[in-house]
Amino acid sequence: MSEPSYGHREGGHSVSQSQERLAELAAEYDAKDELRGKRAEFVLDDTVYLDGNSLGALPAAVPAKVADTVAREWGELRIRSWTQSGWWTAPERIGELIAPLVGAAPGQVVVGDSTSVNVFKAVVAAVRLSDGPAAGRDEILVDSATFPTDGYIAESAARLTGCRVRALPVGEMAASVGPATAAVLANHADYRTGRLHDLPGLTAAARAAGAVTVWDLCHTAGALPVGLDEHGVDLAVGCTYKYLNGGPGSPAYLYVAHRHQAAFDSPLPGWNSHAEPFGMRPEFEPAKGAVRGRVGTPDILSMAALEAALGVWEGVSVDAVRAKSLALTDFFLRCVEAYVPEGRVVSVTPVAHAERGSQVALECADAERVMGELIARGVVGDYRAPDVLRFGFTPLYVGFAEVERAARVLAEVLRG
Amino acid sequence: MSEPSYGHREGGHSVSQSQERLAELAAEYDAKDELRGKRAEFVLDDTVYLDGNSLGALPAAVPAKVADTVAREWGELRIRSWTQSGWWTAPERIGELIAPLVGAAPGQVVVGDSTSVNVFKAVVAAVRLSDGPAAGRDEILVDSATFPTDGYIAESAARLTGCRVRALPVGEMAASVGPATAAVLANHADYRTGRLHDLPGLTAAARAAGAVTVWDLCHTAGALPVGLDEHGVDLAVGCTYKYLNGGPGSPAYLYVAHRHQAAFDSPLPGWNSHAEPFGMRPEFEPAKGAVRGRVGTPDILSMAALEAALGVWEGVSVDAVRAKSLALTDFFLRCVEAYVPEGRVVSVTPVAHAERGSQVALECADAERVMGELIARGVVGDYRAPDVLRFGFTPLYVGFAEVERAARVLAEVLRG
Repeated sequence: MSEPSYGHREGGHSVSQSQERLAELAAEYDAKDELRGKRAEFVLDDTVYLDGNSLGALPAAVPAKVADTVAREWGELRIRSWTQSGWWTAPERIGELIAPLVGAAPGQVVVGDSTSVNVFKAVVAAVRLSDGPAAGRDEILVDSATFPTDGYIAESAARLTGCRVRALPVGEMAASVGPATAAVLANHADYRTGRLHDLPGLTAAARAAGAVTVWDLCHTAGALPVGLDEHGVDLAVGCTYKYLNGGPGSPAYLYVAHRHQAAFDSPLPGWNSHAEPFGMRPEFEPAKGAVRGRVGTPDILSMAALEAALGVWEGVSVDAVRAKSLALTDFFLRCVEAYVPEGRVVSVTPVAHAERGSQVALECADAERVMGELIARGVVGDYRAPDVLRFGFTPLYVGFAEVERAARVLAEVLRG
Repeated sequence: MSEPSYGHREGGHSVSQSQERLAELAAEYDAKDELRGKRAEFVLDDTVYLDGNSLGALPAAVPAKVADTVAREWGELRIRSWTQSGWWTAPERIGELIAPLVGAAPGQVVVGDSTSVNVFKAVVAAVRLSDGPAAGRDEILVDSATFPTDGYIAESAARLTGCRVRALPVGEMAASVGPATAAVLANHADYRTGRLHDLPGLTAAARAAGAVTVWDLCHTAGALPVGLDEHGVDLAVGCTYKYLNGGPGSPAYLYVAHRHQAAFDSPLPGWNSHAEPFGMRPEFEPAKGAVRGRVGTPDILSMAALEAALGVWEGVSVDAVRAKSLALTDFFLRCVEAYVPEGRVVSVTPVAHAERGSQVALECADAERVMGELIARGVVGDYRAPDVLRFGFTPLYVGFAEVERAARVLAEVLRG
C-alpha cells in the first residue's frame, strides 16, 4: 500500500488483532491435535504444503524401501524376487492396505494401472454387470463437472459397449437414474470446488433403479471415510498419489464388491487376471476375486513406494483424519475471512461439513499470478483454470499454524 | 555317475577335450568382444544371468537416479517437479530414447502403461484405422502361439469392436491375411521357442491386403534390429524390462507410425492424451503425435529408472548387439551339443540366424526340476511349462565364458 498509514487505521487494527487471536488459536489446536506426531513421518520443510490433494508429500519410509527394492530385490535377487520378494502378489497385498481406508472388507481392492485405465475397466464392467444395452439399458450417467479423464473414458466405454453418455450435475443424478441407466460414474468430491457428493444417496438411488455405480475416490480416499461396503457401492477406483502419498503417478486401485466379483467382466483381461497366469494357456479363464481386475505385469518400483507410504496409516483412524480435515478447512476459511480484503476471493467450497471434502477452492481474479506469488512466498497450493486457487489439507501432515500462515500470506499477496 | 570311470572312456575323453577347446574359444571371443566394456555398467555378480529376456539386470546408473527422483524431485520439489523435473514430458522423452533401438524416427514412440494395455490401445486403434467391420473387415488375425496376454486382449478388442479373432501359426499369417482382415497382431519373437518371425514379410502382406499390423516387440527390442520405419510397420508395442533393462514391471511403449497418427483413435483417451490436458475441458480433443497414445498420469519412479537404464545404449549399435547375440546363441548351442549327454535336451530354437531371436529354448524332461538345480548352481535361466528351459542372452552383459559355463553346468545337472 502506498498511502501513509496512521497506525490505528480500522482495517489494519482489526487485522492485527484478529491475527494475534487466530495465531493463538492455531497453537491451541496444534497442541490438542492427536495426529500431530504423524508429521514427523513425512519429509517436509518450512513450506506450507497445501497441495497434497494433487501430490502427497514424501513419507520418510519411502526412500529406503525403494532403494532396497532397486539394489537388493532387483539388483541382487533379480528374477527370483517375483516370488521371494513378493513382487507378484503386490497388487492384491497393497490393495489390502488401502481397503480399510475406503471402508472395504478384505479381498475387494487391487492396485495397478492408472486411474483412467481403472475407470475404463470399471465402467465397461458396470455396463456388463447391468442388464445392458440389449435389455434397453444403454445410458451411462456421468457427473458433468467430472475430472475430465473420467468423462473421456466414459465416452470411450459407451462407444465400445453400445451405450451413450448423459452428463449432468451430480446433484441431479439420483433423480435422473432410470430404467435406461446401465452405469453411473461419479466423483466422490469435485476436484475443482472440493464439494463432497452424496455417495450413499446416489448409490442407493442407482441400485433401486437397477444401475451399477462406479465411484471415483481420487479426492476423498485418505481424507475422509468413504464406506464402500457400508453404502453398497458396486465398483470404485482411485489414485494413490494424493492423500495416500504414494508418489508421482503411483498406481491406482480398483474396488470390486464381493457380490460382483464372479461376474466382473474386465475389458482388459491380461495374463495377470488369469486364473493360472503361468499356465500360459491360450484360453482366458479369469482369476477369482479382485485379482481379476489386474492386467499386465505390476510396476514394482512404484508399488514398493506405495506400500511403504501406506505404512503411515498404522494406528490412524479415518474418523480422526476427517475430524481434523474439517477443522483445518474450517479454520482456513475463518482465517481467510479475517485477513483477506473483502471481495478479493469467493469460496466455492461448501460451508456445510457434509458437502465438503478436504480442500478449499477460492475463486480469485488473476488466480494464476496469485498462486505463483504464494508459491514464491512458501505457500504451495495450485491453480485450476480459469480462476481457482486450490488448497488441499492433508490431516496427516498439515497443522493449524500453517493454515493460519497460508491465509496470512494470501492476504499479503492480495493486498499487493 | 555311480559306475567306475576308466579315464579314457570315449564320452569322458571327448568332453574334457572339447571343454578345454571351448573354454579357450570363449576367452578368445570375449577378448574380441567390442561390447564387453558394457558389462561394467550393470550390477552383476558371479551368477551366469541368462534371464535378461524376462527381467534385465540392474544398470548401475539406476539406483542414484531413482534415489534422486524420490528424495529431491518428489521429497523437496514436490508438485513443482511436474514441470521443473520434466515429469510431465517423460513418456515422450523416454520414447525418443527407445525409438532408435526399434528403428523409429523421432515422434512415434510414447512410454506408459503395461504391454497388455498398449496391445489393447493398438489393436482397437488398428481396427479403426482399417476399413473396419462396417466395411466387412471384421477379422483380427492373431499368432496362435502368442504370449497369452496378447491373445486375451485381442479377444476383448474383437468383442468390443464387433470383430472376431482368428488364431493361426505366424508362419501362415501372411498367406491368410485377406479382405476380411482388419488387424494383424503378432509377436516378433516367440516367447517360448525364441523363434524370430518374419516382420517385413508379414507386414508387407498385411499392407497389401489392406490390414493394419500390430507387432509385439517384447522379445526383440534391444536384442536385434527391428526396423519399424524401414519395414512400414503400422503400430507396435513392447515392454521395457527385458532387453531394455528398465526394471520390474517398468512401463511399456507404443509406436504409432507418423502416417497413422492423425487418425489414431485410442480406446483409452485419458486426460494425458488431450491436446490441452490442463484446459480441463469436458470435450475430448486428442493431442497431436504419439502423445495421443498416453492415458493417465505417468508413473514417474518407474519412468526415472527406465530413463537411467536406457543410458547404457549410448554409443551402442543395435547391429553390434545382434552380431554378438547370434554369436552367443550359436556358441551356447555348440557347447550344449558338446557337453550335454545325447538325447537329454532338444533345442526348439531355430538354427537359421534369420529365424532366431536372442534366446535358446531347450525341451527337456523334468525341466522344472532341472532349472531349479541350475539356479542353485549359479546359472539362472527360467522354466516355461510344460518342458522348456529358457536361456536368454543379453549381449550388453553376457560374455562367452559365461555361456560355456552355463552349458557345462547344464551338462553336469543332466548327468546327475
